[in-house]
Amino acid sequence: MVSTREVRQAAAESQLQSLGIQLPAPPTPFGSYVEAIETGKLLFLSGMLPVVDHKPKYVGRLGRELDAEAGKDAARIAVLGALAAARQHLGSLDRISRVVRLGVFIATFGDFFDQPKVADGASDLLREIFGGDTLPVRLVIGVASLPLGVPIELELIFEIAG
Amino acid sequence: MVSTREVRQAAAESQLQSLGIQLPAPPTPFGSYVEAIETGKLLFLSGMLPVVDHKPKYVGRLGRELDAEAGKDAARIAVLGALAAARQHLGSLDRISRVVRLGVFIATFGDFFDQPKVADGASDLLREIFGGDTLPVRLVIGVASLPLGVPIELELIFEIAG
Amino acid sequence: MVSTREVRQAAAESQLQSLGIQLPAPPTPFGSYVEAIETGKLLFLSGMLPVVDHKPKYVGRLGRELDAEAGKDAARIAVLGALAAARQHLGSLDRISRVVRLGVFIATFGDFFDQPKVADGASDLLREIFGGDTLPVRLVIGVASLPLGVPIELELIFEIAG
Repeated sequence: MVSTREVRQAAAESQLQSLGIQLPAPPTPFGSYVEAIETGKLLFLSGMLPVVDHKPKYVGRLGRELDAEAGKDAARIAVLGALAAARQHLGSLDRISRVVRLGVFIATFGDFFDQPKVADGASDLLREIFGGDTLPVRLVIGVASLPLGVPIELELIFEIAG
Repeated sequence: MVSTREVRQAAAESQLQSLGIQLPAPPTPFGSYVEAIETGKLLFLSGMLPVVDHKPKYVGRLGRELDAEAGKDAARIAVLGALAAARQHLGSLDRISRVVRLGVFIATFGDFFDQPKVADGASDLLREIFGGDTLPVRLVIGVASLPLGVPIELELIFEIAG
Repeated sequence: MVSTREVRQAAAESQLQSLGIQLPAPPTPFGSYVEAIETGKLLFLSGMLPVVDHKPKYVGRLGRELDAEAGKDAARIAVLGALAAARQHLGSLDRISRVVRLGVFIATFGDFFDQPKVADGASDLLREIFGGDTLPVRLVIGVASLPLGVPIELELIFEIAG
């Protein structure tokens, strides 16, 4: 007998295929750290930046050099990097039973209050891939600056099945 | 035989009553996330804002539009929302054995260095409710901006008993 | 039979001695919180500041009053405080099997993008003490302000052996 939960767990990789999403090469560190650590049933990832081939795809702050749409796209790029890092560590995204926590750190300038909309760029993509009954808790804050001048950084904790 | 620890655990709900504190309706999300996730013996909450009826009670930054007293009051409102979210998820706050971590994110402008005092607005209320032998670890930082323009956001991790 | 892992675990205290590093007195709180909490196999620490004798060793932001070198030195001071807090709680650093997560919060002004280099001040010291095969995941963000006006704050989660 296969439980509903197990069925859902197996869906992330096939869901990626259905959506026509191909993950990029896993990100590599910009300093002395690793991209993923598993402890107990949790997988912690390093802060994920919107980088492609180890270079920033966007540079700037929201409310100044960039708008919310650019922020949402940057958020999606960072999610794909996070999933690539998770798959590299776990072998398959199907080992993930849940996204536990999504931290969203957005470089902002002045009175920018659309942080939740930008963060939804990340959340909505995660929901498409992992299913809507598995939304994470979320922390969203506007920060003064981010590494490499990127507009967004994500921090993810996953729960691992079995 | 009832251990000291069990006695204390049972105290949060009755302590709320003693203090005459009635929790508000649980907060609802401002985007694609949930307010609480339980994994293992930990309960993670989303970033809690000083909102009442889904609207910000305070808007502004400390060191500019608002002072430390307003920040402390905003912190207390966010704590009550967090407890309402935790009770909704757990059924009763008496299932909480400990507040593990309190993250305090304060929107600041310029040379504002009273972050610890503002954060104590949250910590002190938690201590009144859960007891002084259960203080959490704490991270306090001053951020550039927060969702909806609020001055403070809290992130809580609880340990669940048994 | 002693496994490689056990050998490594036992090395942190002797490694400190080899490096000629003497930990300072453990930090004491600036408000209503504790410095360390153990839950399950994880040890959470409070945000660690570059303080000596409860006073800030550096005050200012990177990109304005302070440069990256000062930031790296401040990061090292905060790491030593964190280790002192961990040892006080655990009895010995040899109980730590791994540094799981290192959060680095850097007070920045304007276009400061060298956050990773500053954060390496913390990571590299941790690697010297705990060994290079145990690098943590890392979150690095630039923030608007920090308690007491310090330039850097660290947040650490350790995994505890057996």
